Amino acid sequence: MIEKLISRIQKTKAPVVVGLDPMLSYIPKHIQKRAFDAYGETLEGAAEAVWQYNKEIIDKVYDLIPAVKPQIAMYEQFGIEGMKAYKKTVDYCHEKDLVVIGDVKRGDIGSTSAAYAAGHLGRVQVGDKRYAAFNEDFATVNPYLGSDGIQPFIDVCKEEKKGLFILVKTSNPSSGEFQDQLVDGKPLYELVGEKVAAWGSQHMGSSYSYIGAVVGATYPEQGKILRKLMPRTFILVPGYGAQGGKGEDLVHFFQEDGLGAVINSSRGIIAAYKQEKYARFGEEAFADASRQAVVDMIEDIRGALERR
Amino acid sequence: MIEKLISRIQKTKAPVVVGLDPMLSYIPKHIQKRAFDAYGETLEGAAEAVWQYNKEIIDKVYDLIPAVKPQIAMYEQFGIEGMKAYKKTVDYCHEKDLVVIGDVKRGDIGSTSAAYAAGHLGRVQVGDKRYAAFNEDFATVNPYLGSDGIQPFIDVCKEEKKGLFILVKTSNPSSGEFQDQLVDGKPLYELVGEKVAAWGSQHMGSSYSYIGAVVGATYPEQGKILRKLMPRTFILVPGYGAQGGKGEDLVHFFQEDGLGAVINSSRGIIAAYKQEKYARFGEEAFADASRQAVVDMIEDIRGALERR
Repeated sequence: MIEKLISRIQKTKAPVVVGLDPMLSYIPKHIQKRAFDAYGETLEGAAEAVWQYNKEIIDKVYDLIPAVKPQIAMYEQFGIEGMKAYKKTVDYCHEKDLVVIGDVKRGDIGSTSAAYAAGHLGRVQVGDKRYAAFNEDFATVNPYLGSDGIQPFIDVCKEEKKGLFILVKTSNPSSGEFQDQLVDGKPLYELVGEKVAAWGSQHMGSSYSYIGAVVGATYPEQGKILRKLMPRTFILVPGYGAQGGKGEDLVHFFQEDGLGAVINSSRGIIAAYKQEKYARFGEEAFADASRQAVVDMIEDIRGALERR
Repeated sequence: MIEKLISRIQKTKAPVVVGLDPMLSYIPKHIQKRAFDAYGETLEGAAEAVWQYNKEIIDKVYDLIPAVKPQIAMYEQFGIEGMKAYKKTVDYCHEKDLVVIGDVKRGDIGSTSAAYAAGHLGRVQVGDKRYAAFNEDFATVNPYLGSDGIQPFIDVCKEEKKGLFILVKTSNPSSGEFQDQLVDGKPLYELVGEKVAAWGSQHMGSSYSYIGAVVGATYPEQGKILRKLMPRTFILVPGYGAQGGKGEDLVHFFQEDGLGAVINSSRGIIAAYKQEKYARFGEEAFADASRQAVVDMIEDIRGALERR
């Protein structure tokens, strides 16, 4: 799946991921109204609004980008109905030949991680049959429990040719509280980064590992260090746009080959129509605003990579 | 909810949690057959088997224990149908007046943690209405992202009088890989423990905080240190039984008042019928074996606490 991600990045010339994190407050009134008219102000109605919103955005941007990253929390908050919308979104993105990074941030002790891995990336055995429940291509994983919590994910990835992005240095303001603590004079995130590189050596593609890392766009200096520390690790970089990251800050997340990183933007794309910059599109044409925001983001990153 | 947990522990005299982590391989053949006859060897069939298995165990043990801890991964692996079985299990445990600890180990950046918190412990706004999607009483949370990933959970807990158990020192063999790393001469889990105590001061019950900690039974020495470091923090202790923890190892997780900890056993209870010790019950009467295993576990822990 890392090969597919790379070939799609090369084809689109866009090392960009659109984060499908649909808060109800982002969803245009006319979509909410249509969903609530059909299903009432219920969890089912909310899930329908989420799905219609996603679908329209996907239809308008899929040809520009290699991958999407649905954030499962935004669906899970609506319970079972929300999870159905998540699954529908994953399936629809596959129909559009997009690589799907499930931003699930799971992680547990071995036997439990094995269940998460089966459910999200692999297949679960039921009698003589096997089913892929959520069927994402990549999943994000939390490393706090150490190797035996990670290994079952890697095992499933090897079997299914799928991949992971393991949290190393997250984009949020307080990520340093534990991640930056010095261990033998070195921040914890470097230790985690070294582990990710080592885990990754178990499951290599031709130039990069199937086992990637998450490093926030909001920490470009740390990104530079981690890029060197994990030369064959693909980095998923959240925090572009709404969280403050800019193209010029991100060049050091990439290798000389222009690969090695994918930059995610969520709110900045899916709720672009709410920004002054894209207000001309209006609420009805929100997905056109999203498309323009993707075009602008790609240009920002391409430009920064060319200027470096 | 911490008050309810404490009062139920006092009533049952059992600081014990049953982990509802139903692997298909634990579920007796006759239950699987019935479910597969009705729904086929499908995700729906698997979810039905899980639900029937849980229900029978809950019916046989609910009067002995204060709380249950369903591990959501074991349901999530069966996709939407599995999540329905999870929700049914949570609701049924509430009917039986059990405290429900959702072992979800979620945790993300602020806005995303807010969605998880709303979905699992709080309510989500849909138009003018509000819905509780999964509605557990407590949730387990991963601290790797720091304060701003935890705060939204605490905010929801304060509003809903619910609680958390935050991972401090997990029960698995490789938990030390990151958690034991020394930061200024002190292991990281102590730093996390201190933070949990500080976070907990925001949301206190009469004697303990609503914000608890997870510390594995497999690390009794660390439990002793953490008990002192977090005097008003309730500790959820996984790893009893199948993972190796014994009653006598666990006394230091408790305060002098006999409170301050709840010990979880999952496989050791729900798959008790597979142990030689309980083989006399047979597969059909698996839930009677579970009841006996709960009785024995309570006696083991009570005895250890009396002897200390």
